[in-house]
Amino acid sequence: MARVVVITPNPAIDVTYRVDVQRLGETVRVVDATRRAGGKGINVARVLHALGRPVMAVQPLGGASGGWIDDELAAAGIDTVSVPTGRETRTTVAVVDGRSHPTLYSEPGAALDDGVWRALESAIVEHCGPQDILVIAGSFPPATTALQVASLVAAGTSAGALVVVDASGEALVAAADAGADILKPNESELLEATGTSTLDAGLAALFARGAGCLVISRGSAGLIGASADGDRVAQDGVPGVSGNPTGAGDAATAGLVAALADGLPLPEALRCAAITGAAAVLAPIAGVIDPADLPRLAARLDGGSFPLALPTAYPPTPR
Amino acid sequence: MARVVVITPNPAIDVTYRVDVQRLGETVRVVDATRRAGGKGINVARVLHALGRPVMAVQPLGGASGGWIDDELAAAGIDTVSVPTGRETRTTVAVVDGRSHPTLYSEPGAALDDGVWRALESAIVEHCGPQDILVIAGSFPPATTALQVASLVAAGTSAGALVVVDASGEALVAAADAGADILKPNESELLEATGTSTLDAGLAALFARGAGCLVISRGSAGLIGASADGDRVAQDGVPGVSGNPTGAGDAATAGLVAALADGLPLPEALRCAAITGAAAVLAPIAGVIDPADLPRLAARLDGGSFPLALPTAYPPTPR
Repeated sequence: MARVVVITPNPAIDVTYRVDVQRLGETVRVVDATRRAGGKGINVARVLHALGRPVMAVQPLGGASGGWIDDELAAAGIDTVSVPTGRETRTTVAVVDGRSHPTLYSEPGAALDDGVWRALESAIVEHCGPQDILVIAGSFPPATTALQVASLVAAGTSAGALVVVDASGEALVAAADAGADILKPNESELLEATGTSTLDAGLAALFARGAGCLVISRGSAGLIGASADGDRVAQDGVPGVSGNPTGAGDAATAGLVAALADGLPLPEALRCAAITGAAAVLAPIAGVIDPADLPRLAARLDGGSFPLALPTAYPPTPR
Repeated sequence: MARVVVITPNPAIDVTYRVDVQRLGETVRVVDATRRAGGKGINVARVLHALGRPVMAVQPLGGASGGWIDDELAAAGIDTVSVPTGRETRTTVAVVDGRSHPTLYSEPGAALDDGVWRALESAIVEHCGPQDILVIAGSFPPATTALQVASLVAAGTSAGALVVVDASGEALVAAADAGADILKPNESELLEATGTSTLDAGLAALFARGAGCLVISRGSAGLIGASADGDRVAQDGVPGVSGNPTGAGDAATAGLVAALADGLPLPEALRCAAITGAAAVLAPIAGVIDPADLPRLAARLDGGSFPLALPTAYPPTPR
């Protein structure tokens, strides 16, 4: 089975603080604190693992927080290559009170030394083969250059892997310039990165730069797939799913990639993405899915079945 | 020289997030994140170490964050006994924007097992002698009983040490019940813990329970010392000091304790507390002092000198 190598350039410990009422300028008692290894790529790797796929999570990590992430991924049974950075891995803090929008404090993270970038490229070359898929997902550390983004894409391409990039801003543009096979921003990231105001203009801008295929996630509205030669596929979202949308885009990426790894064509892969994303919305913890939800979500979407073989042991190790 | 053993029952990594503007319900970019080992007791230990005093910091610690605190204290050159809890040590997050009051998110921490309480008592018995001082400072973990607080006080008393407690709420009352030698709440903690509305009534309530001596810190207004037999001493604060008051109370405790360890009488120890607390207000980092500030703050207070011998190497190891 094709392996998926997932690069998370700027991982984090994602902390969630539940509080009674959000307030500014006061001491706010945290009712409950939860921590998990985060960053889009790590979320993608976690869902691929839940889908029973061979996955290798590759990320720069440092300090006590980096060690904590390493331990958490190991406890989840996910194969990892962690490149030591010598700097404390960042944290994000989401404050939720169940009444209003969460407040998210996002540390920028530390810039990576040249040696770390080279080690990430080496890990790609070592672990990616011609049948494999390389996913590069999430934010990049401060001071990342377009060349550094392009070098990761090039390492995957030269290894013969299919390269999928879920990024935003300058990194998304750099990945298009580097000829990534599939770019998967959401709609607002596409418009922001390209400075355009319509989906068509955004797609055209990235195709002009060298992107092979674009998959645009649109939340509950589903996904759109577009190729440089003008083909366009629209996939509806699963209707009537409500819950926690955080991490649903990452689960959709995992569903897309798992289907592509099985050799399914893009329309069927988009359908898997929509179903897997909906499963993440249903699950109480952000970015986690229960594979047992997938067959009935597939039936609700269009009366069909979920096309991928699923692991027989439900549920996956709870985290 | 008498040793000071400092118990921090509920230590934390104190994180400070500097942001441009505090907002709720949005993604807020953290401009700068700083972390340090915190909890009142650890702050007291750090200032005693800066004053050149033999100090032993004793605290329950667990997980990656506990390991981080252990490493930080070791790097600062502070002797420690860290009792493993098996649970991740808590974090506090202060969000500051330089415009309005900081917002502080305070995790409650995890309850301690009986074995951890016994190990803390054993550490007191092992490291405290009749010439020594035991300081118990800061919040207590959830589910702490009055008996557990009393057992820490009793361990210090039975070792022959002078027992100083800086606590609030039920733990302050429990320490009074247990006959702690010196209680050092601030004025609002005294009133809240005793359910009284005047300083005199609050003092009387704790003396009635068994407190030996009370030192009440009042910020820039100085300190009041009171003994069970009715003696009362008022010490002015150092005038004209502005800066960061966070941690000044902990520095004052350290100054008080260092003076008592030298055998100075209470009025002179209160004077040291006022000067050391003012030095913490001057320093840019919460709860840190530069001993070089102490002689001139003493002169500003009353034209006198700082009565304690200071280390000759200024400044202490920067953290």
